[in-house]
Amino acid sequence: MNFANRVSYIKSSPIREALKLTNQPGVISFAGGWPAPESFPINELIKISTEVLKEQGKNALQYSSTEGYAPLKEFIAERMTLNGVSAQADDIMITNGSQQGLDFTAKLFINEGDKIICESPSYVGALNAFRAYMPEFIDVKMEHDGMDMNALEEAIIKYKNVKYIYTVPDFQNPTGITMSMEKRKRLVEIAEKYEVPVIEDNPYYEIRFEGEKIPPIKSFDKSGMVIYLGSFSKTFCPGLRIGWIMAEKNILRKYVLIKQGADLQNNTLSQMELSRFLTEYNFDAHINKVTKIYKSRKEAMFNAIKREFPDFIEYTNPKGGLFTWVKLPDKFTSSQVFEKAIEQKVAFIPGDAFYANGSNVNHFRLNFGTVNEELINEGIVRLGKVLKNL
Amino acid sequence: MNFANRVSYIKSSPIREALKLTNQPGVISFAGGWPAPESFPINELIKISTEVLKEQGKNALQYSSTEGYAPLKEFIAERMTLNGVSAQADDIMITNGSQQGLDFTAKLFINEGDKIICESPSYVGALNAFRAYMPEFIDVKMEHDGMDMNALEEAIIKYKNVKYIYTVPDFQNPTGITMSMEKRKRLVEIAEKYEVPVIEDNPYYEIRFEGEKIPPIKSFDKSGMVIYLGSFSKTFCPGLRIGWIMAEKNILRKYVLIKQGADLQNNTLSQMELSRFLTEYNFDAHINKVTKIYKSRKEAMFNAIKREFPDFIEYTNPKGGLFTWVKLPDKFTSSQVFEKAIEQKVAFIPGDAFYANGSNVNHFRLNFGTVNEELINEGIVRLGKVLKNL
Repeated sequence: MNFANRVSYIKSSPIREALKLTNQPGVISFAGGWPAPESFPINELIKISTEVLKEQGKNALQYSSTEGYAPLKEFIAERMTLNGVSAQADDIMITNGSQQGLDFTAKLFINEGDKIICESPSYVGALNAFRAYMPEFIDVKMEHDGMDMNALEEAIIKYKNVKYIYTVPDFQNPTGITMSMEKRKRLVEIAEKYEVPVIEDNPYYEIRFEGEKIPPIKSFDKSGMVIYLGSFSKTFCPGLRIGWIMAEKNILRKYVLIKQGADLQNNTLSQMELSRFLTEYNFDAHINKVTKIYKSRKEAMFNAIKREFPDFIEYTNPKGGLFTWVKLPDKFTSSQVFEKAIEQKVAFIPGDAFYANGSNVNHFRLNFGTVNEELINEGIVRLGKVLKNL
Repeated sequence: MNFANRVSYIKSSPIREALKLTNQPGVISFAGGWPAPESFPINELIKISTEVLKEQGKNALQYSSTEGYAPLKEFIAERMTLNGVSAQADDIMITNGSQQGLDFTAKLFINEGDKIICESPSYVGALNAFRAYMPEFIDVKMEHDGMDMNALEEAIIKYKNVKYIYTVPDFQNPTGITMSMEKRKRLVEIAEKYEVPVIEDNPYYEIRFEGEKIPPIKSFDKSGMVIYLGSFSKTFCPGLRIGWIMAEKNILRKYVLIKQGADLQNNTLSQMELSRFLTEYNFDAHINKVTKIYKSRKEAMFNAIKREFPDFIEYTNPKGGLFTWVKLPDKFTSSQVFEKAIEQKVAFIPGDAFYANGSNVNHFRLNFGTVNEELINEGIVRLGKVLKNL
């Protein structure tokens, strides 16, 4: 078959591939980005799905608008406004998870060879979505408080015509790092000065279990340079595939045309179910419950790590989200450790794939959110053994 | 904003846009491709959604595989095998409706400027999905029994390097035309001889209310040149956004990588619900019920058309699906008629947009499936008045 050139750039997600190995019986997996299933509001959804189908079944199963279900968009707009981003329902389009927002963003901006700036490391699912449009990735390194803003500005000046800057500002995947308030403001200044859009991918914003929330980058945006991607995958559940894009109306209109061609619209029934959950139940109380689970699991993992990992292992200390980023001494690679870990029936994601241009091979990502405290403890004991034997 | 070049090719769907006009109160709409809401199995779904959430809630709301829910793929493989296409679950990937299959197909094959062959007229949603990848469209005209195979072969020879041939073989959208058995066989021969893949988009295959089913093009394919796109939007409901791609494993693997980057996976819960419906209820009986509705509505529309339309109006006589294609005398345009029809509170889709390279302006599409017999009758009375006054 004579495929398009882009196909040779489309890589398999190491996470989706690793899941095949890590789903073997007995393996304790810190690999996926999966949220805690204990946090899913199953009983509420049983009630809600019956109500929606009984009261609005014909509409719930029919085609509906590309932009998304209006009451759901209204809830999102109100919630974003509460979080400091002045938004209206018309500024929002519903997507199949924020992953679809990433694909559409690349489709909207990237011609072959165009330059985009990503944090180094960055979310591998975003890198893979972007790669299909054959950009040139410019790395900007992560510091303890977010991407290096001086390096960012230098890169924009050096490379010219940068199409966008991609960032996960809160509890970044994979590092768990959060961008400081100062850097958010500086990022918006840079975006405005050089007219380079910022893609703010913020699925973990609401999953903070320590400290004060820092307003989204979008909240500092006065000139429409920031495009915000949100998600219900971590605050509600990922199985319904509901995320959103919030952007200035002229930009959002382009996203809507892209979605028309790509898949017409999101699942109507699921949008109605989520909307009813958000309006009939207390979403803040629900998020509180979810973050408590993650807080407790993070503490369980960190207590075990302190006890079980040798001293030469470094790791980040996230105040929210699902991930910590572990650093091996330079002479080791995370792939070596991964092989030994799988033998001991414990899994994680080797860090290589999170670097757009390769290079760094001695990091790995641990997810503390998916399995319960007991399994976390046992998994870290196993991983500690592997690390001590290096 | 400095968008990608492709954005200037991405058009608004005339159908989605027309829906805004046609959704006004009092308008009888034959415009959308919407199935009959009376055919949706709402009561069954109430029972099923409760069962799935109670028994498998944690899995149903969690991430799941990119390829799709295994029992659903197995059902589809068995059903396709019954329909003459020998298939296994591993040959199938679930998509967000077959619209997503169209987008992924273009993404898989088209470099800017590549040539693809489409029926003239063709499904506008496919044309729009393909357009985002900037192909050159080669038209092959439709005859009463499907695309002109001599013209097709000439076009392949003339243009060389044609990336694929796109066809809707059964009850084509917009014409309602079905490709004959002979042409299906000839199409596969041509595809094999010139090594040009065929994209068989077949959402209406099961919606036949007269005559014998003709086996899918894929059933004649011995060398893996045919890629089959299926859909549950017309046999179950469109709101859950479930379609599928069936292709040779090496090709399907590429589609899976594309879906990983595009949106990770389909809605897990909806796949489980559909799968349970297909295995716990009698799908043949359900399809029987659905086709009876369409048969009755088609008859209502055709009886009214015979009575109300002036003699100079021609139209196709589909044996299934949702659409008939109406031809005005050459001196009229369907856009003129559309404006007058909207004044009379009846709507359809003007045919221009169904021609990839423009030109033809005196056709329009009527959907007989969405509204009930009484409204069909009243709508055709109104439309007849407009046509008589031309």
